[in-house]
Amino acid sequence: MPIDNALSPHGGELIERLLPPHEAERVAASLPRLEVNDQIARECVDIAFGFFSPLTGFMGRRDVDEVVHHMRLSNGYVWSIPIILDVSPEEVSDRGVRPGSRLLLTQRGAPLAVLNVEEVFTFDKEEMARHVFGTADPKHPGVRRTLAQKDLLLGGPLSLVVPPRLGAPFDRFFFTPRAMRERIKQHGWRRVVAHQTRNVPHTGHEWLMKSAWFSAQADAVLVNAVVGEKRLGDYIDEAILLGHDMLRQAGYFRPEVHQTSLLLWDMRYAGPREAVFHAIVRKNLGCTHHMFGRDHAGVGTYYDTYAAHRIFDDLPDLGIRPVVTLEWAYCPECQGIAYEGLCGHDRSRQAFSGSVIRSILQDGVKPPRLIFRPEVFDVVTRAADEYGFGSPFVTERYLHERNPVLEFGRSAGEVTG
Amino acid sequence: MPIDNALSPHGGELIERLLPPHEAERVAASLPRLEVNDQIARECVDIAFGFFSPLTGFMGRRDVDEVVHHMRLSNGYVWSIPIILDVSPEEVSDRGVRPGSRLLLTQRGAPLAVLNVEEVFTFDKEEMARHVFGTADPKHPGVRRTLAQKDLLLGGPLSLVVPPRLGAPFDRFFFTPRAMRERIKQHGWRRVVAHQTRNVPHTGHEWLMKSAWFSAQADAVLVNAVVGEKRLGDYIDEAILLGHDMLRQAGYFRPEVHQTSLLLWDMRYAGPREAVFHAIVRKNLGCTHHMFGRDHAGVGTYYDTYAAHRIFDDLPDLGIRPVVTLEWAYCPECQGIAYEGLCGHDRSRQAFSGSVIRSILQDGVKPPRLIFRPEVFDVVTRAADEYGFGSPFVTERYLHERNPVLEFGRSAGEVTG
Repeated sequence: MPIDNALSPHGGELIERLLPPHEAERVAASLPRLEVNDQIARECVDIAFGFFSPLTGFMGRRDVDEVVHHMRLSNGYVWSIPIILDVSPEEVSDRGVRPGSRLLLTQRGAPLAVLNVEEVFTFDKEEMARHVFGTADPKHPGVRRTLAQKDLLLGGPLSLVVPPRLGAPFDRFFFTPRAMRERIKQHGWRRVVAHQTRNVPHTGHEWLMKSAWFSAQADAVLVNAVVGEKRLGDYIDEAILLGHDMLRQAGYFRPEVHQTSLLLWDMRYAGPREAVFHAIVRKNLGCTHHMFGRDHAGVGTYYDTYAAHRIFDDLPDLGIRPVVTLEWAYCPECQGIAYEGLCGHDRSRQAFSGSVIRSILQDGVKPPRLIFRPEVFDVVTRAADEYGFGSPFVTERYLHERNPVLEFGRSAGEVTG
Repeated sequence: MPIDNALSPHGGELIERLLPPHEAERVAASLPRLEVNDQIARECVDIAFGFFSPLTGFMGRRDVDEVVHHMRLSNGYVWSIPIILDVSPEEVSDRGVRPGSRLLLTQRGAPLAVLNVEEVFTFDKEEMARHVFGTADPKHPGVRRTLAQKDLLLGGPLSLVVPPRLGAPFDRFFFTPRAMRERIKQHGWRRVVAHQTRNVPHTGHEWLMKSAWFSAQADAVLVNAVVGEKRLGDYIDEAILLGHDMLRQAGYFRPEVHQTSLLLWDMRYAGPREAVFHAIVRKNLGCTHHMFGRDHAGVGTYYDTYAAHRIFDDLPDLGIRPVVTLEWAYCPECQGIAYEGLCGHDRSRQAFSGSVIRSILQDGVKPPRLIFRPEVFDVVTRAADEYGFGSPFVTERYLHERNPVLEFGRSAGEVTG
């Protein structure tokens, strides 16, 4: 059978891997344990609920090799970012891990997933970085993450032991691919355009989404906020989600054309490669279109501004269409937010400045509603008080004391979606 | 060969029918003359330059019959409005017209076109009206026009004797299909969305065009203003054309995404049937998409608000895609012009009122630039002074003394396009 990359979900089948409760109890008691970090825990959840379909676990050597060098899985489906479980030689030897081993992955001591180890292998980290990120510069955060991996990789399928519980307000925005597809069906949406975000939305973002909605002739916009590792100064996750959702609640989007949701994912900043990854994951969620703006998933000056717009030209039909957008900016002559591809007032238009918006939010001065919606401002302020220790931006305290997004090991009945 | 309605131009070949100068002189001197009214003169020009491809002349009985009853030409191509030349029995008998006759059509005495008469026939006017307009109510202006036709129809191909000269400012906006296709090619436009208009644009119209540009993923908007029979109180043609063109000149559209042009056509107000006609003519001009908003080409309450959106569902692919739009309106909560399909502030949005805009223009009070662009306001005011005897709306004086749009019979070298 020839590979059809347009199948939705990717590969044609929605992966779902959860142990039945009686088996979960047994394995939790009997298997050797391996504690994993938060990133790996998030990716276990993504794999088990099919966000990463057709992946059934962490990649083995052939998949990693194909992905790194050819942006394909070994079965031929397009895939752009290695999904790997790195371990130290000591972790392997202490537990006597070898192909055929089963391990109980734990997070903060709580049972998370069972991994059926098929391979224990090494991979050249610099080689991986150079191909995935187009650079081996350790100043690139994705490269740094790659180079910091432990020296061995475990490949093999996994199953979740206990579905995670999500803390407030994340629980309202977490939809598994199955749950999101059900919601899309209930709404009768045939075309859904995904919006990747790590920002509290200003009106430039609002218009990006609105114009993409037109360009996709979409029924709805799916805001899919990336929730993962945070850096100092990032917007806190709660402000991002509640801010976007407020655009709908306050009527800037009709309720029937907008949905806020989240993706558990640690940004790799892999630019065009990450754009492809985002497209595939949002296809798995049921989206038909994906927005790509300026510097999508980029960092620094490693990628051309619109590199993410072009990478799809060289790929087969992925079953989700890229919707490429230029910028929206305030134009005093148009007296509103104007699109740089349409508005000819190049000398008057004033680009949105992330740092100006940030300092406005920091200082608590309510900006004009044409630039920033007052209802969004208010909900961000409330989120700062409730979740951010007074700040809408990530602080040291937030990093260490924030409300957990994911919790494992409580009641197995509390799965969302 | 099966019929392919998607061919562009319609039928696959751009019709162009102009006599060479030496033949033009000969026929002008020798053939019996038949004076035609302004509507017929405009349609002769449309036929000769291929706006109505694949038509080569006025329809014979079979075409009329198929168009009226089945919305098809006798060769199978979709066509929705009869294009006919009506004459009186006296005009026919005085000239001894019969199949095989050649006639010199004249307008205001000047040679216009040679008609090769293939058929002289009658057609039931009420039957025609009932099918084309969905009503035989004589209060419907298209029905009234149909019922007022003279009793005989002449069918047969025609050729223009002398290309028309267009008066200012129409000359700048008249593009034959060949000329427009050339311009589209020069710009490198692959997707062009047509905007049908008989209005001076307010910002609601501007946003309709902008959103349709997104929806079509278009390279450009082609404003194609209908220039034909005017009624008291209509906007004067000059204000419509200069107003739309000012949107580009004043930077509300970049020069590379916008073109103003005109179509010689007397509105039939045939609602969905006229929507199909508009689509085919704009395809002949090189457009790939056509905007259809509320009450497209409708009048009174004869047609459902969005009937023009649905008629295309029952037709084969016409090679030009309908882009259907709801309304844009001023929303104080969004603090701008908002789309009713996206904005949830249903109780706050204030629909554009044609009569309010008209009275503002009439009284010369400059409206807010968010509602009406000041540069458009100024050019409309100038057009009123220069062409409208002080009014931007059609007056009795304008009807009788306006600058001519088309003039025939001068130098044959002054063809535009």
